Amino acid sequence: MSGPLQVLVDGAPVTADWPLDRSLQYGDGLFETLTVRGGRLRFEALHRARLAGGCRRLALSIDSNALWQTAGELAAAHVECTLKVLVSRGSSLARGYTPPPAATPRVMHLVYPPPAAGEIPTRVRLATLQAVLGENPALAGLKHCNRLEQVLGRMELQQASGFEGLMGSSSGTLVSGTMSNVFIGHGEEFVTPVLDQCGVAGVMRAVVLREAAQCAVAVREARVSLAELGDCTAVFITNARMGVVAAHELDGRPLHVPEAVLRLADRVRALAD
Amino acid sequence: MSGPLQVLVDGAPVTADWPLDRSLQYGDGLFETLTVRGGRLRFEALHRARLAGGCRRLALSIDSNALWQTAGELAAAHVECTLKVLVSRGSSLARGYTPPPAATPRVMHLVYPPPAAGEIPTRVRLATLQAVLGENPALAGLKHCNRLEQVLGRMELQQASGFEGLMGSSSGTLVSGTMSNVFIGHGEEFVTPVLDQCGVAGVMRAVVLREAAQCAVAVREARVSLAELGDCTAVFITNARMGVVAAHELDGRPLHVPEAVLRLADRVRALAD
Repeated sequence: MSGPLQVLVDGAPVTADWPLDRSLQYGDGLFETLTVRGGRLRFEALHRARLAGGCRRLALSIDSNALWQTAGELAAAHVECTLKVLVSRGSSLARGYTPPPAATPRVMHLVYPPPAAGEIPTRVRLATLQAVLGENPALAGLKHCNRLEQVLGRMELQQASGFEGLMGSSSGTLVSGTMSNVFIGHGEEFVTPVLDQCGVAGVMRAVVLREAAQCAVAVREARVSLAELGDCTAVFITNARMGVVAAHELDGRPLHVPEAVLRLADRVRALAD
Repeated sequence: MSGPLQVLVDGAPVTADWPLDRSLQYGDGLFETLTVRGGRLRFEALHRARLAGGCRRLALSIDSNALWQTAGELAAAHVECTLKVLVSRGSSLARGYTPPPAATPRVMHLVYPPPAAGEIPTRVRLATLQAVLGENPALAGLKHCNRLEQVLGRMELQQASGFEGLMGSSSGTLVSGTMSNVFIGHGEEFVTPVLDQCGVAGVMRAVVLREAAQCAVAVREARVSLAELGDCTAVFITNARMGVVAAHELDGRPLHVPEAVLRLADRVRALAD
């Protein structure tokens, strides 16, 4: 297969093959964002399982053990950090969407500082966004590298202001935040959207579904209409970096913060796996 | 803004900033694929307009004149080639979906050989795919770098076999091929799907909508159900590299190839702009 005849990046010739990376060209890749604490990867098994599932669905064949061994070594070396692992299908000499059989996946480990103190505001305000998420069961749940919808969501949130924006699907159901999963409360009961059409199946979401009953928080997955957002009395959001974050305000309306949710946040914070 | 503490690519430290490119991380970019013939960019004005529209919608600020001047110089130098231009939002030191105000877009020009003789088979077979396209009006029409759905479509097509696969939206309407726009004929009339919910507004599609009447081909945009595919008597597909390609078979069913479509293909092939 003959490759490109010439490649310019910002007008200058480049002979390295990274401009041909399929994640750069098509977002043809997957990632995980992990919290490292005390030199250990938190919830490693859940991150491993999600990445492995994504690799199966996208037919990406990687040396998973080597990837997670390197991740573990970086965790031990940096002790407290955020670790992003990205798996791209790799560079392709050929143009076009068909994955070349010869492509070797490219694995990246990016170590970032741990969350800064004050990253989560004392008053957590949420805004419902106009930006929507397209539905595609073949991609639903995966943490893949096609994230323009979240980028548009964050751009809208910058105008609306608020800590996180909630996004619905193209068919009008609630899905998630731009960078988090969402649980909305009606009285004592919380529901979180089913993610079979779109959205990312968050690791912290799975932890909450597993742990909530221990804190007398009732949670279940359900199809949630955007209209139900208007009726809810409490909301919390989750992701692997922040854990469980109770919201104080939704679209300018004050929310109740149940004690049980704060207990759940504490419980999850104390867990390693 | 502090950047990553450490970056490994395939286990080796990298200090270059391309691993932080937002098109690689999120598919946060746009591209154009042009045919260069006789040292000239074909349909340059249409490609310029689509890229400019995409930059506006994604709030990407680029030096468009410099980009197209370089493209023109490459066209003159290579005479016959396929030129891919990719605009990424650029590298970002910070993690997260919010576009950093300081990001400088990265512009890439990739020169590929022209289409090989025999690239288009003498008998063009199409297959209707199970893979769907998610709907998002904010991204509809753009040639952005979130192309996993097309990658999945091509993977399915490799199993089904055929030259091109046709894809529907999550709500069950016909949208396009994996790499082409589609026109389906009922008797003397052709329709091509409206692209307000998903799909790429192809340059060659626009040329066909402009030129078809000159060849006595009636074309119009419409909402097209997948069921209508079963009734159609003729289909042609279009893109900037192939021009107009009449299909001979759809899901194993023979199609009629109208003389007028062949005339349209010839007419479009002869055009420069």
